[in-house]
Amino acid sequence: MSLASRPDIISFAGGMPGNELFPVDEVEELFRGLDLKTRQAAFQYGPTPGLPSLLESLGGFLEKKGLPVQKNRLMITTGSQQGLSIVAKAFVDPGDRVLTEYPCFIGAIAAFRSAGAKIVPIPVDEEGLDIAMLRLEAARPDPAKFLYITPYFHNPAGMLYSSQRKRELVEALQGRNIPLIEDDAYGDLWFHEEDRERLKPIKALDPEGIDVCYLGSFSKILGPGLRLGWLLAPPAIYEKCELIKQSADACSPSFTQVIADAFMRSGQIDSYIASVRQQYRLRASAMAAGLRKCLPDYVRWNEPKGGFYIWLTLPEGTDAAEILKHAIDGGVVFVTGSTFDPEGRRTNAIRLSYCNNTPEEIERGIPIVASAIRTVCG
Amino acid sequence: MSLASRPDIISFAGGMPGNELFPVDEVEELFRGLDLKTRQAAFQYGPTPGLPSLLESLGGFLEKKGLPVQKNRLMITTGSQQGLSIVAKAFVDPGDRVLTEYPCFIGAIAAFRSAGAKIVPIPVDEEGLDIAMLRLEAARPDPAKFLYITPYFHNPAGMLYSSQRKRELVEALQGRNIPLIEDDAYGDLWFHEEDRERLKPIKALDPEGIDVCYLGSFSKILGPGLRLGWLLAPPAIYEKCELIKQSADACSPSFTQVIADAFMRSGQIDSYIASVRQQYRLRASAMAAGLRKCLPDYVRWNEPKGGFYIWLTLPEGTDAAEILKHAIDGGVVFVTGSTFDPEGRRTNAIRLSYCNNTPEEIERGIPIVASAIRTVCG
Repeated sequence: MSLASRPDIISFAGGMPGNELFPVDEVEELFRGLDLKTRQAAFQYGPTPGLPSLLESLGGFLEKKGLPVQKNRLMITTGSQQGLSIVAKAFVDPGDRVLTEYPCFIGAIAAFRSAGAKIVPIPVDEEGLDIAMLRLEAARPDPAKFLYITPYFHNPAGMLYSSQRKRELVEALQGRNIPLIEDDAYGDLWFHEEDRERLKPIKALDPEGIDVCYLGSFSKILGPGLRLGWLLAPPAIYEKCELIKQSADACSPSFTQVIADAFMRSGQIDSYIASVRQQYRLRASAMAAGLRKCLPDYVRWNEPKGGFYIWLTLPEGTDAAEILKHAIDGGVVFVTGSTFDPEGRRTNAIRLSYCNNTPEEIERGIPIVASAIRTVCG
Repeated sequence: MSLASRPDIISFAGGMPGNELFPVDEVEELFRGLDLKTRQAAFQYGPTPGLPSLLESLGGFLEKKGLPVQKNRLMITTGSQQGLSIVAKAFVDPGDRVLTEYPCFIGAIAAFRSAGAKIVPIPVDEEGLDIAMLRLEAARPDPAKFLYITPYFHNPAGMLYSSQRKRELVEALQGRNIPLIEDDAYGDLWFHEEDRERLKPIKALDPEGIDVCYLGSFSKILGPGLRLGWLLAPPAIYEKCELIKQSADACSPSFTQVIADAFMRSGQIDSYIASVRQQYRLRASAMAAGLRKCLPDYVRWNEPKGGFYIWLTLPEGTDAAEILKHAIDGGVVFVTGSTFDPEGRRTNAIRLSYCNNTPEEIERGIPIVASAIRTVCG
């Protein structure tokens, strides 16, 4: 049994929604209410790009975010992990460079590596990617195959790109022949109305001179166990991706596509997102309050604005693995920052997830993390 | 709308189970009867190799077929198409040769090509693979990366390997360092008790000196829309495959894994397989009766013993695409043989599926196929 699933351990490790938040009864009732033909279709193969009815309802959902659904093509993927794997395969030949953030989502690192990519990590601060470094990379004579970013409640860094930083990023890429992979798995989980302008996808700005592939997921707004994500891409890229998906798994599960479609068409997705947003805000507040109270001043972190994560930056040279050992002795587990470094070198950071804990567990757990930090860093 | 889904056309094209055969009500009732914790887990991420409970129940199901589950490792895949894609990625570097049958399942051709394989097709007759040709290939100094076969109610050739041919195949591979990929998607759909000995998987013989990877699927014994298959492989191969799956889609859908597990543990899988076996036997009999009555003598085909398909071999030089045109004019569609030729050259064959038609539709459709053949071949 892994530490993270031991009942005597408080886990701030996983990026999993809380099991108690899933709309189990609602989905059962929705499925029961479908006509026989639709329920039978749930057991059958579907088209490789996804069930037409879901593509339509999801298309409407994405258009409400301002995304250019009509000018692009939409594909259902088996989780957004498959979206990453397909995009990597579409763009990368072994040895090609791709640009990512540091820190970077580990699923993306795995997918890009699996396609043979050489990963070039560019650091982020609390407003987004380091633009000076991006400009240097973009100016190289052999351009990278794409830039991958998760600008909205970043995993693991927790931060939200500023509108200004997004504009600078677009300018740095324009005309450079470097497609942008924009991963928006957490954008619906905002905590404050005033941040909504910053959540507008770059894909929705439809910037000229850049191919933008937009990835999203039902994992955080319905359930990861359905394994449903999506890819919105320009037609020429989409066509390549469809062939890759065909050979990867023929089609995503019709069963869960039928469920997701019913969930969207019933309108329950909106009320469900509103309710989990509220839950995650409570959890984030509890963790932020604990950190404010207990952390030594030399630890940098930023108040979460949405999503699942808080990222702690420790003094240069700190070995977060040492802190983790002490935290486990105290009964708390988390993920160390080097996990999210494509080069595995930066050791002075910690990712804390608040998504899967009650506020009470968080209040008990944070002093243990703080104490472990003091033990190692003084 | 594709021809195959037009209501005025009788389609012998698809390899899809009949929608009316799916156990829709049974699965709904099973899911409703599960405890809350299990239903919540259906919405959550699961381990990459599959939900432990399903691995256990499926392991028991496979052990009843004599498969060496304990000596190997079992992994759930997102349909057996993902199993093919993973195996290809595990073994093949671009330019490597792999051996397949001719004709060959098109999903396998797509997956192997996607990994960069050069496909070497070896013909099958009504007893299995051409062993002389296999021996020549196996003796080459640079051995192929694997041999892929579908010995049980072959798609598209419909045939069932003889026990003798399987033994010869094993002898030809032993000590040659060519792993065997044995795809058994249809083996449960046998029509005659006396064929059961021939259905024993090569993997169950546990032959020395060959690595055998055994692929299977819930697609034909529950529903393809669940996207659940499996891979039983020696530990060293399994480990490589697990990493590949991790980056491909993190895990297969927990939702449908929970369903498949409940379906197996309730024992309903056995009664369900028995009932669809009976249905497909009726359909196969109707098609065989029609072919016996209507086909000219120069068309070779073999009485189906199980599975979904009958394969017609036309006189050398016949262009089956011409026959298809006439058949469509008459109101029937099917798939021409060149689709299943990795080299796309052999044009004198036709695949007829009986899985998705009532006996009445089959009785109406077969004379139209026969008439189209006579129009082209005389």
